[in-house]
Amino acid sequence: MNLLLFRESEINADGVARLTDARRLAHLKEVLKVQPQAMLRVGVLGGMMGYGTLIHFSEKEALFSLSLTETSPPKHPIHLIVALPRPKTFRKVLWNAVTFGVEKLTFIQTSRTDKGYWQSPFLLPENVENEMILALEQAVDTMPVTISFYRRFKPYVEDVLPSELHGKTGYLAHPIQADACPMNLATSSVFAIGAEGGWVPFEVDCFEKLGFRSICLGTRILRVEQAVSVLLGRVAQL
Amino acid sequence: MNLLLFRESEINADGVARLTDARRLAHLKEVLKVQPQAMLRVGVLGGMMGYGTLIHFSEKEALFSLSLTETSPPKHPIHLIVALPRPKTFRKVLWNAVTFGVEKLTFIQTSRTDKGYWQSPFLLPENVENEMILALEQAVDTMPVTISFYRRFKPYVEDVLPSELHGKTGYLAHPIQADACPMNLATSSVFAIGAEGGWVPFEVDCFEKLGFRSICLGTRILRVEQAVSVLLGRVAQL
Repeated sequence: MNLLLFRESEINADGVARLTDARRLAHLKEVLKVQPQAMLRVGVLGGMMGYGTLIHFSEKEALFSLSLTETSPPKHPIHLIVALPRPKTFRKVLWNAVTFGVEKLTFIQTSRTDKGYWQSPFLLPENVENEMILALEQAVDTMPVTISFYRRFKPYVEDVLPSELHGKTGYLAHPIQADACPMNLATSSVFAIGAEGGWVPFEVDCFEKLGFRSICLGTRILRVEQAVSVLLGRVAQL
Repeated sequence: MNLLLFRESEINADGVARLTDARRLAHLKEVLKVQPQAMLRVGVLGGMMGYGTLIHFSEKEALFSLSLTETSPPKHPIHLIVALPRPKTFRKVLWNAVTFGVEKLTFIQTSRTDKGYWQSPFLLPENVENEMILALEQAVDTMPVTISFYRRFKPYVEDVLPSELHGKTGYLAHPIQADACPMNLATSSVFAIGAEGGWVPFEVDCFEKLGFRSICLGTRILRVEQAVSVLLGRVAQL
């Protein structure tokens, strides 16, 4: 945790933030070993960030007086679409994408996605939000990422994606007849990464009809969560 | 497992490979659900790769007749030096670097490295080799990566690194007075990534004396294993 992230609802009218949950209390005590008047990096989910001074700390709560003067670092203008992977991988992909700073993250059903993955408790909205908050705390970022789920491929790609793609360039991670992966993109882009085994021809056709270009991430077979970080490291402006 | 990797010692004089270990037997049975005469991607550690035909399969052993006609994919001319991280992270860094295809991987002690990490059983030679083999099986690569460990910073940087660096360009992941991270390097390079909290001034001086240039991977704080993949995705030619 490189940033202590509060929700608006945790801040009272005079600007004092109060946390009472076991996770953060334990972190303050056991990892950070905070002392009275400790100053920590803090932020407000969806808002500003800065420093917080610890003004009260007990077993049950910690109170901070906040000084919020900084805006969150900008996101990269990247929308990442990922075939829903197995639950453990899903969490890693979410973490890697959010800490890296993508703007938008979408998980979709594909032919090679096991439908059972949709039953995972990791996909419950509160768990997705909690995982996103942990990742924002790691990256020192306060701005939520838009994370969406589409359980049907065709309705998403035909009815939703065209407007999401408007004004952006689409790239499909698909090594067949592919261009080299672009680098250091300044413009808004959409990247789609398939399941293990990749995209089936029908799916490739759907993306190509929308103007997506196939790109190749090299010849080695990487795990999805690693492919995401390799891709982002390559295409983003750092 | 995208490649079944045999050691030389598992191949008999007539070119039949025999595996008897529980891990691979279970993988063949439960994940791949192999049938008689199944053809799989196979390779020999340190040697060629190609296809293997299953000629016998029992609870205790599997025999393959091998057809090895391909060379392993080339490595990237990258030597990665990493401050030894906590054991779980160590395994992830090893995995990410090996599957990506670095040529050489070195773990070192730094001021901000917890010395207790050197006690981890993950660092035992047989465990390092096993983890490397799993990563090569993932990446479809047969060539071992040179993985080294140095428990003392100064002797490594002063006595060993200069000759390792010969003819290569050195880069230090260190965001202060840093250049942008280079991209798509064709030449041999050495990259050094610090512990959580980064390099102390003395360490930076040591690297700078050898000609290392500080580079920045962006303003966000990434976990070490993710920073490795982001860096590799950026600097390698894909």
